[in-house]
Amino acid sequence: MKIFFAGSIRGGRQLIPRYQYIIRFLKSRNYTVISEHVAAEGLEKVEATTTEQEIYEKDATWVEESDCVVAEITVPSIGVGYEICHAAKHKKPVLCLYETGANASAMVFGNTTGYVSAKAYSNKEQLEEIILEFLDKKE
Amino acid sequence: MKIFFAGSIRGGRQLIPRYQYIIRFLKSRNYTVISEHVAAEGLEKVEATTTEQEIYEKDATWVEESDCVVAEITVPSIGVGYEICHAAKHKKPVLCLYETGANASAMVFGNTTGYVSAKAYSNKEQLEEIILEFLDKKE
Repeated sequence: MKIFFAGSIRGGRQLIPRYQYIIRFLKSRNYTVISEHVAAEGLEKVEATTTEQEIYEKDATWVEESDCVVAEITVPSIGVGYEICHAAKHKKPVLCLYETGANASAMVFGNTTGYVSAKAYSNKEQLEEIILEFLDKKE
Repeated sequence: MKIFFAGSIRGGRQLIPRYQYIIRFLKSRNYTVISEHVAAEGLEKVEATTTEQEIYEKDATWVEESDCVVAEITVPSIGVGYEICHAAKHKKPVLCLYETGANASAMVFGNTTGYVSAKAYSNKEQLEEIILEFLDKKE
């Protein structure tokens, strides 16, 4: 199963260690993460050598080629919001994870497309449980 | 012409005066702004009396019923990103405005749907010129 992981890039990089944790966890369970770069330190430098169109096309295509999307939405991000909508449009189940207390968007919480769900977590154990529950339903 | 204005709500409210300025400008030129609430002080309290599903449905429907979308993307926001994608999906031209130097998303800058454009502004005169140029093309 191929998973597109979505996290903030230009919206703010303060949660990189969390993104890395989620990706490592997914890989440890033998899932393929097709957007591992999202959690890479220094990604901004790599992106600087790529055109904006190339980044857009690659991300949009990866979402379309994925089986589902796992998004960390604690840090607000235009790109993550766009990717969630793009995934729903292509009928991909999207799990949106956020720290308990984070005030995330009604476009996620109130989403009625049937493809987008949101769950709060307070610690790593809870984070892992939520992810596994989502992925178990998919298999 | 009906315009959906998009700005950050839960992503951060620091640009409310800018959102108000843009909406006032659009209305002064006799455009109808169907999401004027985005720039309302105390919106969070109003939203608290509405279900998340109602907010989602209202916003999604308003985007679909608009002729075009004007989005201020300087403050990162999952909701604004979602609305930009939703608008492009429904073939609505989207103008994304951002302060010169703001590092906005490649999903906007590199967007190849043909519906999304982005322009930086440094002052109010420039902001008004960019908006009028976009709307003139539409009429």
